[in-house]
Amino acid sequence: MERIAIDMDGVLADVYAQFSDWHYKVTGIRKRPEDVYGLKEMEAFPDARKYVYTPGFFRNAPVIEGSREIMEALNDRYEVFIVSAAMEFPQSLPEKQQWLNEHFPFLTWQQIVFCGSKAIVKADIMIDDHFKNLDLFSGRTLLFDQPHNHLAPDGNHQRVFSWKEVGGFLL
Amino acid sequence: MERIAIDMDGVLADVYAQFSDWHYKVTGIRKRPEDVYGLKEMEAFPDARKYVYTPGFFRNAPVIEGSREIMEALNDRYEVFIVSAAMEFPQSLPEKQQWLNEHFPFLTWQQIVFCGSKAIVKADIMIDDHFKNLDLFSGRTLLFDQPHNHLAPDGNHQRVFSWKEVGGFLL
Repeated sequence: MERIAIDMDGVLADVYAQFSDWHYKVTGIRKRPEDVYGLKEMEAFPDARKYVYTPGFFRNAPVIEGSREIMEALNDRYEVFIVSAAMEFPQSLPEKQQWLNEHFPFLTWQQIVFCGSKAIVKADIMIDDHFKNLDLFSGRTLLFDQPHNHLAPDGNHQRVFSWKEVGGFLL
Repeated sequence: MERIAIDMDGVLADVYAQFSDWHYKVTGIRKRPEDVYGLKEMEAFPDARKYVYTPGFFRNAPVIEGSREIMEALNDRYEVFIVSAAMEFPQSLPEKQQWLNEHFPFLTWQQIVFCGSKAIVKADIMIDDHFKNLDLFSGRTLLFDQPHNHLAPDGNHQRVFSWKEVGGFLL
């Protein structure tokens, strides 16, 4: 059975939308995806570093459209691991696990990995929105489109714009 | 640079001693290593499952003799990752990270991995006290001697009885 390593932020959890919502609540200004194309989240949203250390930021992030249904189908056909580089934000660890338990209850604790560097991940397929993770990986790679990577060339990666498209490639 | 995946409980953190101390405090009975040879911790200490869910259990575990010095030397010569199957006990995640920060301050958050199954670990060398982890691993394996594995045959693994011995093999 092939093994897939699936990122959380920007792939399952809509952290862009969460940053945008929190920014809107604080400033009254709504930044649309096209306003922040090519910008890192810390550049796009000046208070982003404050937000990610605020309780609730990760716990209440919206789920990306279609991810639950496709994930459930992938979980039947592949060995699925959620791999989140969450170690930078220690207080997020229990929040992220609770979030997964709520929105992806078919996943078990055995399938969750919280790490710093993803260099240590052994799998056949990786789905991620960051080149720094995909570029280190020797298997098949799907680049999940996000505002921060939207303008960058795809490189050796297959860019996908939705979970429906992920399903089309992998199911 | 070769990569080493190093377990926490039973390799860096002396959870056997912690179980034994907590059991002594509750019951007045001191179980020595030889009293629990070959027993899983949950068999050796009837309230073990309660202890591991109690705040402070992991945060205050003793450090295994010699581990800090040898780890610091390994960290200069290898790509070191701490890999702990901590996901079963979510409340332990921040405690384990704080424990590492206190006792192994030369390690960065990039080097820490909290997972469920260790099947996903890609490294050259693994140091662990559990056969279930070492048996899945295709690289070089060091079995760290602990009461629970003490009576089992070594299998394909190199058994080590101390961090001094780890240093002898790897430095």
